[in-house]
Amino acid sequence: MSTAAVTVREDARGVLELTLSRPEVRNAMSLEMVLALRSALAEAEAGGRVRVVVLRGAGGHFCAGADLADMAAARVRLAEDPKAIEKVSAAFGELCVAFAQTGLATVALLEGSVMGGGLGLACVVDVAIAATSAVFRLPETSLGLVPAQIAPFLVERLGPSQARRLAVCGARLDAQAAVALGLVHEMHATGALDHALERVLGDILRCAPGAVAASKALVAQARLQPAAGMVAHAAELFSRAALGPEGVEGTTAFLERRPAAWVPR
Amino acid sequence: MSTAAVTVREDARGVLELTLSRPEVRNAMSLEMVLALRSALAEAEAGGRVRVVVLRGAGGHFCAGADLADMAAARVRLAEDPKAIEKVSAAFGELCVAFAQTGLATVALLEGSVMGGGLGLACVVDVAIAATSAVFRLPETSLGLVPAQIAPFLVERLGPSQARRLAVCGARLDAQAAVALGLVHEMHATGALDHALERVLGDILRCAPGAVAASKALVAQARLQPAAGMVAHAAELFSRAALGPEGVEGTTAFLERRPAAWVPR
Amino acid sequence: MSTAAVTVREDARGVLELTLSRPEVRNAMSLEMVLALRSALAEAEAGGRVRVVVLRGAGGHFCAGADLADMAAARVRLAEDPKAIEKVSAAFGELCVAFAQTGLATVALLEGSVMGGGLGLACVVDVAIAATSAVFRLPETSLGLVPAQIAPFLVERLGPSQARRLAVCGARLDAQAAVALGLVHEMHATGALDHALERVLGDILRCAPGAVAASKALVAQARLQPAAGMVAHAAELFSRAALGPEGVEGTTAFLERRPAAWVPR
Repeated sequence: MSTAAVTVREDARGVLELTLSRPEVRNAMSLEMVLALRSALAEAEAGGRVRVVVLRGAGGHFCAGADLADMAAARVRLAEDPKAIEKVSAAFGELCVAFAQTGLATVALLEGSVMGGGLGLACVVDVAIAATSAVFRLPETSLGLVPAQIAPFLVERLGPSQARRLAVCGARLDAQAAVALGLVHEMHATGALDHALERVLGDILRCAPGAVAASKALVAQARLQPAAGMVAHAAELFSRAALGPEGVEGTTAFLERRPAAWVPR
Repeated sequence: MSTAAVTVREDARGVLELTLSRPEVRNAMSLEMVLALRSALAEAEAGGRVRVVVLRGAGGHFCAGADLADMAAARVRLAEDPKAIEKVSAAFGELCVAFAQTGLATVALLEGSVMGGGLGLACVVDVAIAATSAVFRLPETSLGLVPAQIAPFLVERLGPSQARRLAVCGARLDAQAAVALGLVHEMHATGALDHALERVLGDILRCAPGAVAASKALVAQARLQPAAGMVAHAAELFSRAALGPEGVEGTTAFLERRPAAWVPR
Repeated sequence: MSTAAVTVREDARGVLELTLSRPEVRNAMSLEMVLALRSALAEAEAGGRVRVVVLRGAGGHFCAGADLADMAAARVRLAEDPKAIEKVSAAFGELCVAFAQTGLATVALLEGSVMGGGLGLACVVDVAIAATSAVFRLPETSLGLVPAQIAPFLVERLGPSQARRLAVCGARLDAQAAVALGLVHEMHATGALDHALERVLGDILRCAPGAVAASKALVAQARLQPAAGMVAHAAELFSRAALGPEGVEGTTAFLERRPAAWVPR
């Protein structure tokens, strides 16, 4: 399933690693890469084996933002297609939405440049792990552009106040500052990244996949609703999980002091 | 008003202390406990004397989550009542909502295990004070269950991004990490907890009860509305408070350099 | 354009500095001051030269909150105008909304007292820079009043959970605590404040004014909407910026390795 732009690797535990593989341009997000990531995620959701999707970059960088060549090509096409640039932007936005809405667990490993669209992707995953050397930038406004597809996910990750500040100042943050803001959840030396990833994967894989998906959907709903109106729906979700195969296996395994069936041996 | 599950103590200042009292099961939240807490809160709201509700646990733990015996009993009843589990879950959800919506000030003292539903209660109070030894856990997803009634309050406390991460990873946090996330507001050595509580109670009791209740209601509204639409309502609230007995007494006391009538001597 | 209450200074870069100038009352927010700030902002928005508005206070304090003399005068007028207090409150609320909604970049320099309405203003700017000596207070509830116009902006800046705690406890915070909560973004020794301001202004002025305004509007929308519904609108915004004069100049300057036209020399 790998393409020129994205290398795909799946292990026996259901961990799908998607590596942005254009190191010669610090993995700038080309339209080809956007489409490859979307179809890899869609296949993973449909296939039923994948439980966690890991995003990372080849060559010491995560992603340096939008690909300038694609933008230039879209400009050339404008005479025949006045929406050419909108379409490139929307394709990236749909990728972010697909990652933000997936029921699969998601993790990003962030090294080197994490810019523009790369910063957007860092905001849509469930767990963001940064190397101490990572540099986060939102250069759009300094280029006369708007971080338009990224802004909503910055708001979800950081709240509106910090998101606004970063856009207004054309932010440049080191990993320490990114941890302090909650933009990333953990920071480690580059050499310790894979170890940190394994620990996070271990935590995630101890959790039941259906319960993870239901929890993610519930959190998304709760962002925009008063809690008081969610009690009945939450009770139904809880009951369905408790009476379903995962709830039965999970509580039985707990009482028998053994790992549940979904925990990799 | 104390029951087997909840010890109730009220002092002359209007501080109502509700102690979860099932230390043999680390104060696991039984249905009896849920109902006792709800009626204690409802009585406090109706009675007009209570100003602050303090939640704590007996025996060095706050609350280890849902009571497994209640869940087992609900399963047994399923044949005659297919909604038995939903009802247990909804009863706990209604308790959380009642605490989140009360106009009374609320504080939690968090020691030892703060798990599942206990973590939910920690998220609904106005001020959460933790012992350095407290351990926070969201084990639901690792048991094949969904932290369904808890998730909305995690979102209010931490924002959607951190709430989602904790659910996906079946979080286990120490007190230091809980402070860093904003899950709790203060951390103290166990021996210093009651002193910290007294300081927080002193701060709260210097504030007028009606003003506190109005402020809490306003914050809840502001979470889901644009500020621009709230100016007229806020002006009316301000005027009502300024012209009401609390506003008159408060500003008079300030000018006379004496404590307001609502401050305990 | 300066008035008795607000000193106005504009530089060649489009930085408008508005200094609250009633040092004898620690710049308490009088109705005159509210109106002067609103018309200064409205003129700046209409004039087309101003890019950044800086709020600061004269005499070592930012703002000690509402002016008690105005409140007393409003009380006297109550017989003839029962809405006199509401009107004073609403005027301040409209000021906060105008600052929160402006497309211009905004910065506050916070020294000494930052109380009540002053704390509200600190929450509506894009970048809040505090002196280490600044003291933040929300005294309303301790006076029997409600921080009614301030609460919505506290929620946007801090989230509902911290906003509620501050109101319930009649908060008093030093600058360090304000940084930890995200109430302010930077803290510096008083002597280093102007240097810090220059650095922030440099960052802001490197960003294109139209892109800044569009980003601010987008962040405000994203606070109350699901990201999934914003893709098409965001794509349109992105395309409009990329094809507009700022986008063309910004990307051309980048390729030519020169500062864009909007960067002050």
